Amino acid sequence: MDRQLYEILRGYILEGRIGAGTSLPATRTLAQQLGVGRNTVVAAYDQLLAEGYIEAKPGSGTQVASSLHSQIRPKREHALADAPRLSRRGELMASRPQPPRSPGKINFHPGFPESATFPFSTWARLLARNARRRSDDILGYQSFAGHWRLREAIAEYLAVSRGVNCSPDQVIVVTGAQAALDLIARLLLDGGETVWLEEPGYLGARSALLNGGAKLAALRVHQRGWELGDPGLPPPRMIYVTPSCQWPLGAIMRLDERLQLLAIAERHNAWIIEDDYDGEYRYRGQPVPALRGLDHSQRVIYVGTFGKTLFSSLRIGFLIAPPGLASAFESALSVTGQFAPLLLQATLADFIREGYFATHLKRMRRLYVRRQTDFLALCRRELGTWMDVSENDAGMQILGWLKPPFDDQAIASAALRYGVDVQPVSINYQHDAPRQGLLLGYAGLGDREIVKAVDGLRAAFESVDPGRTSKHGNRGLVPLNKKKLALS
Amino acid sequence: MDRQLYEILRGYILEGRIGAGTSLPATRTLAQQLGVGRNTVVAAYDQLLAEGYIEAKPGSGTQVASSLHSQIRPKREHALADAPRLSRRGELMASRPQPPRSPGKINFHPGFPESATFPFSTWARLLARNARRRSDDILGYQSFAGHWRLREAIAEYLAVSRGVNCSPDQVIVVTGAQAALDLIARLLLDGGETVWLEEPGYLGARSALLNGGAKLAALRVHQRGWELGDPGLPPPRMIYVTPSCQWPLGAIMRLDERLQLLAIAERHNAWIIEDDYDGEYRYRGQPVPALRGLDHSQRVIYVGTFGKTLFSSLRIGFLIAPPGLASAFESALSVTGQFAPLLLQATLADFIREGYFATHLKRMRRLYVRRQTDFLALCRRELGTWMDVSENDAGMQILGWLKPPFDDQAIASAALRYGVDVQPVSINYQHDAPRQGLLLGYAGLGDREIVKAVDGLRAAFESVDPGRTSKHGNRGLVPLNKKKLALS
Repeated sequence: MDRQLYEILRGYILEGRIGAGTSLPATRTLAQQLGVGRNTVVAAYDQLLAEGYIEAKPGSGTQVASSLHSQIRPKREHALADAPRLSRRGELMASRPQPPRSPGKINFHPGFPESATFPFSTWARLLARNARRRSDDILGYQSFAGHWRLREAIAEYLAVSRGVNCSPDQVIVVTGAQAALDLIARLLLDGGETVWLEEPGYLGARSALLNGGAKLAALRVHQRGWELGDPGLPPPRMIYVTPSCQWPLGAIMRLDERLQLLAIAERHNAWIIEDDYDGEYRYRGQPVPALRGLDHSQRVIYVGTFGKTLFSSLRIGFLIAPPGLASAFESALSVTGQFAPLLLQATLADFIREGYFATHLKRMRRLYVRRQTDFLALCRRELGTWMDVSENDAGMQILGWLKPPFDDQAIASAALRYGVDVQPVSINYQHDAPRQGLLLGYAGLGDREIVKAVDGLRAAFESVDPGRTSKHGNRGLVPLNKKKLALS
Repeated sequence: MDRQLYEILRGYILEGRIGAGTSLPATRTLAQQLGVGRNTVVAAYDQLLAEGYIEAKPGSGTQVASSLHSQIRPKREHALADAPRLSRRGELMASRPQPPRSPGKINFHPGFPESATFPFSTWARLLARNARRRSDDILGYQSFAGHWRLREAIAEYLAVSRGVNCSPDQVIVVTGAQAALDLIARLLLDGGETVWLEEPGYLGARSALLNGGAKLAALRVHQRGWELGDPGLPPPRMIYVTPSCQWPLGAIMRLDERLQLLAIAERHNAWIIEDDYDGEYRYRGQPVPALRGLDHSQRVIYVGTFGKTLFSSLRIGFLIAPPGLASAFESALSVTGQFAPLLLQATLADFIREGYFATHLKRMRRLYVRRQTDFLALCRRELGTWMDVSENDAGMQILGWLKPPFDDQAIASAALRYGVDVQPVSINYQHDAPRQGLLLGYAGLGDREIVKAVDGLRAAFESVDPGRTSKHGNRGLVPLNKKKLALS
C-alpha cells in the first residue's frame, strides 16, 4: 500500500502535475483523505524524501523539491537516431556473429554431441550434491582461474589421453573454447600483428583474432595437408591450427608437419594456438596426441572444451597457459569475467574423477563410429546424385562436397524450408574461391532424426534441382523415405 | 596393451633411439618377441602410421618415417626467456587484477552474501529437474543472449522492483557484472575516448574501461553527493555511476542529481553505465528505483547481477541494452563467450518465477538490517579507538574510516595475519589522496564469524598500535573477547 502511494505521488511529481515547491498535505490529513493508515503515508513520504523528490522544511511541512523545477520535463521517447552508436571496434565485433542456429529445426550443425544418452541423472545427482554442500571452495572464495579440483582433473586427463604434460596451475578454466580464443587474442596480440589462420578455417577463431586486432594470413589446408612452406606467408606472430581434426576439412596433421610447424614458430618467435576442439573423437586407433605434447619451447597454447564431449550448453572450456604466463591469464580473466560457475566446475571435476567421463567418452566413440557408417550409407544412397561424402577418421561431422553447379548457401537455405538447419562449408573460406559443401553434424542425431534430416536435405536438393531426381528415382519404394518429411 | 606399445615405440622414435629410415620388425615377429597378440602390434603400428611416425613401403615393410630425420632433436626444456611475451595490451590487462581473496581466512570482503541460509536444497532440486529434462532449449540450440525464460523473468523483476521498463529481448545475460562491463567497454568505446569514473570508484569498472582503451576522468563523489558540476571534467563519451549505493562510499544519488546526470549525458551524446550492483538492498523504505527508469533518451545501460542476491559463484549477471543495440550485443557475445550456462539460467528463471527469489530477498533484507545494527554496535565497542563507523541505508558493507595516523593497507596486512581478509578503501582512489578506511562486508558473516572477525581486526589494530589499547582496556572481561583469536 505505501509502495502504491509512493508510486502515485512520484508519478505526479515526475509528470509535473505537482509542481516544484508545492506543499504536500500533512501525513495525518492525507491518511484521512485516502482512508489509509498514517504509517502508510509516512512510509511513502520517507521514501520520496530519501530519493530527493520532496523535502521537509522546518515550520512549513513537506514540499516537492524546489531543485526539480527546471529539470522535470514531459515524458517523451527519443527516437534512437538521437542516441550514440557503437564504437568502431564495436561495429567490427558485432558484424561477425557465430553462425546462427534456427530453433525448431533438426540441428545438423556440427559440434553438437549426442545428448539423449548423456547420464543426466548422474549429472543431476552430482550437481545437487555439490549445491547442497555449501562448501567454501564453491561459495566463499572465487579462484578466478578455476576450481582447483577441476584443474587437477584436466591436467591428469590431458596427460593420459592427449599426451600433454602440464601442471594444474597452468590450466585456466573459462566459459568455453570461444572465450579461450578471445582471451588469448587479447592477451598475446597487439593491433596489426600477423596471425596465420587455416584456409578454410574456423569462423569463431577468425572473429576472436580479428577482434583482437590481428592481420590474418591464409595458411592453406587441403585434405593432404597444411601448406606450411607457402612462400607467400608473412612472418607470423601467432599461428592458429586444428591439428587433431582440421576444421572444416577433417584432416589430421602428420608428425612431420607438426615438427615443421613448431620449428617455424620457434624461428619467428611466434605463438601457436592448438584448438583441440574434438581431439577425443578418433575412430581408427587411439586419439592422436596433441601438438602441445611435442612442444619443448613453451609456444603452444592448447585450447580444449567439454562442450563437445558432454553437452554444448555446459560452457566449460580451458586453455593451458605457458608456464610463466598462468598468473597473467588469471589476472586478465578476473577483469573479463569469462569464468565458469564454480558449482559446475566442481561437478565436472567429480564427473571426471569418478570415472563417468571416461565411460561416456568410450560409449560415444562406439556410438559415433556406428552413426558415421550408417550416415554415410544413407547419404550415398539418398543424396549421391548431388553430393560426395567420404568417411572421416576423426571428429563429429562429415563434409559433403556438392557436385557442380550447386551452391551450398542456396542448399542450406532450401534445407531450412524443409526443417533442417545445416551449415554451408563456403563460409569458412575467406581468401580463396570457396569449395561448395555441407558440414553434416551427424554425431548428435539419433537414428530417426538422421533419416528425417537426410529426407529434408533430399527435398532441398530436389527443390533446387527440379530437372533431376535421385538416382533411385522411385522414392516411394525406398524404405527410408517412408517417413513424412518434417516440414517447417 | 596396444596403447602401451604405441607409447613405447613413439618414445623411442622421438628420442632418436630408432632412427629415421630404420625398418621395424614385421607385426607377426614383434608379436612373438613380445609375447602379445598380433592385433596389439597391428593396432600400435596403425596408430603410428596414422600420425606419421612410421611409413609403410611396398616390398620393404614398415620403416620409421624418413622425413623425421632432420627434425627429431633431443628433448630439452627452453627457459621461458626464449618464449614470446604478452602483448602491450596483455600487459595492461594482466596488471590490474581484481583484489585477490585469501582462502582459509574470514572473508570480510564486501559483496559476499549470506550463504548459510540460502535455500540450496530448493536450488539443487530445480537444478536437477532442469538437468534431467533434456529439453532442447537447454541442450539443442544456444541462444547467445540468454535463456528466454530468464530474460522474461529479469524484465518482469526489473519493472516491479527497480522501476525499469524494458522488453525481454533487451536483456543480455552474461557471466556477471564484470563481464557486462567488459562487453560494454569493448562495444561502445574506442581507444582514447573519455569516460567519467567515480572517485573513489569501483576497481572492476576501472579495469574494464582501461582495457577498453578509455581515458578516465575523475567524477568526484562525497558522502553528500556527486560533483557533477565540476568544471575540470572534460566532455565525456561515457559515464560510469553506482547511483543506488555508491561504491565504496554507500551514498545514494538524489533525484536532482539523477536528472542533472541525464541532462549532461544528453548534452554530450554520452552513454551512462548504471551499475546497480546491490540496489536490491535498502533498509529504510523501498529500494530506490533505478536511474534507467528516468531515462527517456535510451542512453542508460543498466548492469545487474545475481551474485550479490543469491551467491557469488553463481556467475549470472545481465545488462539492459538500448533498444536498437540488443542484437549487436548478442553478436559480440557470440564471439567473446561471456555467456552463462543455459542450465543455470533455466534454473534461475524457475527460482524467480516460482517466488523463491522474492522470498529470499525479503529474508535477506531483514537479516542484513539486524546484522548491520549488531555489527555497528560491536565495532563501536571494540574498535572505536581506531575506527569510525556509521550506519548505511543501503548495501551489504559498512565503511569504517580509520582515525589518523593509521594506514588501511597496513591494517589489512596485519588483519590477514590474524585470520581476517579485509579490503582497504584506499585502493579505490586513483586521482586524489586516498582517505584511509576498511570496507567491511558484514552481510555474509554469521554471528559467530562476525565476532571472530572483529576480534581479528582488534588484534590487527593493537599489533600496529602497541602503545594504545582499546578504550575498554581490560580485554579479559569483555565477553566478546572470550573466544580465541582465529590465528592463521
